[in-house]
Amino acid sequence: MRAEQKDSRVIDKLKEMGKTVFEQIEKGEHPSIELPIRSLNNIYFDQKSQTIKMGDKTSQRLFLNIAHTRKFMQTTLIANELKKIIDQKANISIRDLYYALKHTIAGTEENSFENQSESDPIIEDIECSMNLLREELHLAASTKGVITGRMKIKDGKDTIDLTKMGSGGWGIPSNVEPDRIEIKDVDAEYVLFIEKDAVWKRFNEDKFWDHGKCLILTGRGQPSRAERRLAQRLNKEFKLPVLALMDADPWGMYIYSVIKQGSISLSYSEEKLATPQTKYLGLTIKDVETYKIPKEVTIKLNHLDVKRLDEMANYEWFKKKEWQDEFKRMKEKAIKLELEALSKKGIRFITEEYLPDKIKSKDFLP
Amino acid sequence: MRAEQKDSRVIDKLKEMGKTVFEQIEKGEHPSIELPIRSLNNIYFDQKSQTIKMGDKTSQRLFLNIAHTRKFMQTTLIANELKKIIDQKANISIRDLYYALKHTIAGTEENSFENQSESDPIIEDIECSMNLLREELHLAASTKGVITGRMKIKDGKDTIDLTKMGSGGWGIPSNVEPDRIEIKDVDAEYVLFIEKDAVWKRFNEDKFWDHGKCLILTGRGQPSRAERRLAQRLNKEFKLPVLALMDADPWGMYIYSVIKQGSISLSYSEEKLATPQTKYLGLTIKDVETYKIPKEVTIKLNHLDVKRLDEMANYEWFKKKEWQDEFKRMKEKAIKLELEALSKKGIRFITEEYLPDKIKSKDFLP
Repeated sequence: MRAEQKDSRVIDKLKEMGKTVFEQIEKGEHPSIELPIRSLNNIYFDQKSQTIKMGDKTSQRLFLNIAHTRKFMQTTLIANELKKIIDQKANISIRDLYYALKHTIAGTEENSFENQSESDPIIEDIECSMNLLREELHLAASTKGVITGRMKIKDGKDTIDLTKMGSGGWGIPSNVEPDRIEIKDVDAEYVLFIEKDAVWKRFNEDKFWDHGKCLILTGRGQPSRAERRLAQRLNKEFKLPVLALMDADPWGMYIYSVIKQGSISLSYSEEKLATPQTKYLGLTIKDVETYKIPKEVTIKLNHLDVKRLDEMANYEWFKKKEWQDEFKRMKEKAIKLELEALSKKGIRFITEEYLPDKIKSKDFLP
Repeated sequence: MRAEQKDSRVIDKLKEMGKTVFEQIEKGEHPSIELPIRSLNNIYFDQKSQTIKMGDKTSQRLFLNIAHTRKFMQTTLIANELKKIIDQKANISIRDLYYALKHTIAGTEENSFENQSESDPIIEDIECSMNLLREELHLAASTKGVITGRMKIKDGKDTIDLTKMGSGGWGIPSNVEPDRIEIKDVDAEYVLFIEKDAVWKRFNEDKFWDHGKCLILTGRGQPSRAERRLAQRLNKEFKLPVLALMDADPWGMYIYSVIKQGSISLSYSEEKLATPQTKYLGLTIKDVETYKIPKEVTIKLNHLDVKRLDEMANYEWFKKKEWQDEFKRMKEKAIKLELEALSKKGIRFITEEYLPDKIKSKDFLP
């Protein structure tokens, strides 16, 4: 589907919302908008898709209910503004949207929005009621990630060869939907999703993606939506396995779980963001023994780590034996391990020994 | 100078340090290393270069002084490792370096480094004593920024056309020194240094750099070293004015001052990082009147803002009348203003009206 077609479908959905309200008013009915319930009790781990999902409970936002009136007004204001932005073929940030709509309501001293914490949840309401990503509504989320490797990107009139980015990378834009970003000439066997920028730079400097026949991607910490969406597209459309390379600590493992299953806060979008086929390449506490990592470069687990590990061990998606064993091992040894610690074994140990060995032996966590 | 020549000069400097110590030992002298003093009383604002600088006070690090012995050992360990890394033609992060060198000293229970806060200051000692950027010592700092616009980058064998990056940008690498990054075919009249990613995306989406004949660069908040270094090179080598586009708040104005004059913590490198010719395009509190920005989208100044403003008003580099007036205006009106607030005037107001008008009228702060 081309961008124009996609946009006109999105506009139709927005118009439909307005039309429903308008017809209710014409018929003398109480105006209402049906919205999915985004609270925790409507969020679950879907075994079939292996992602976090939102259930199908909905509620009515009623104009004539004093507790709803303000939000009702805000919902129509935002839907209306989104249509305008799409008509203008622009993309804006959610902060821009908040400012664009903030005004003092005529004849009152009341503002349409007091701060952004009022407009953000309404955007999420619209996203999930229409089953659209915010990017499809022309809202640009921030991005931090970069990617290089054996493929090309066609973006508007530009074709970007990701094997020719020098020592830098392609800074991933906010909207990587198929109507905007065409993925071309993929000549890679897998996607390496790296937690840390410094480690990504190590792989990129050695052009690991070339002889390793892969794509290397980092979200510089917790990845943004666009970085996850791009990984999902590479997995779904090109059947590329996604391998995660994270610190062996609760934070790194949690980031992995977000890439794989999604997060609770974005449950309504995870079908389009999560990549359930992702595998955890490393680091693990088991690696410490296997690769004889000296104990000086491990870090003592602190009480917050232990608390977080216990929480994570109870998540449905970490119930698999391999993960329970890994969590147990981490608690017993009471250590964690950062990716950079592998430099102790030589600065190219990670690219020349660790990673090729792990891939050869398929020593992954599920 | 080619990368190989540059590297061999750096290695010579590192060898020189080792040789000096070795000769001292051979002669039966007390081994010592001379290092610049990096404390506040050796840092000043240099009127001539208009950057923050380190003075020429030095001190001796003595092996046989118990208070210095540990640091002396650490200094020689790091200098030695840096030479090895350069020999291997690799670049590593300062965290990698810390891990690579961390070990328990034979026959003792003492570690060479207890944590990274011990190795980082030693790196800085070496940087400033040799008058080299850490990137020249093959240490990669993290980067966050992206750039697009009318120029090309030659990086290794790749030539990257920054007008053909689609809706993304070129993710700036850590080392942008002339021996690594060749800047080519510059067809721009100025560099626009934008504080925020969301605003950069707005400018990039409209390909503002094309009709605006410029380069657009963001550091996504406080810019990294590489982003500042690249702006400096564009200014020095290509005589491009650098124009800063920041929030009208103490934080945005402080970021501007770092781009322009440098920071105290990096004083020893600012000659190579700061761009004293940078001008402040906006936002200003004066803009609120000039462009009739509705008061609903301004934000009330809080007491921390006021405190910070008072501190900044006392900085030597903010003593110019125009800045003192702006600070006074901000305090009197007791408001600040974010870049996204201009969306209130229309989502393309910033690119189509505000910026062209500011540039036409040369309404900049010094």
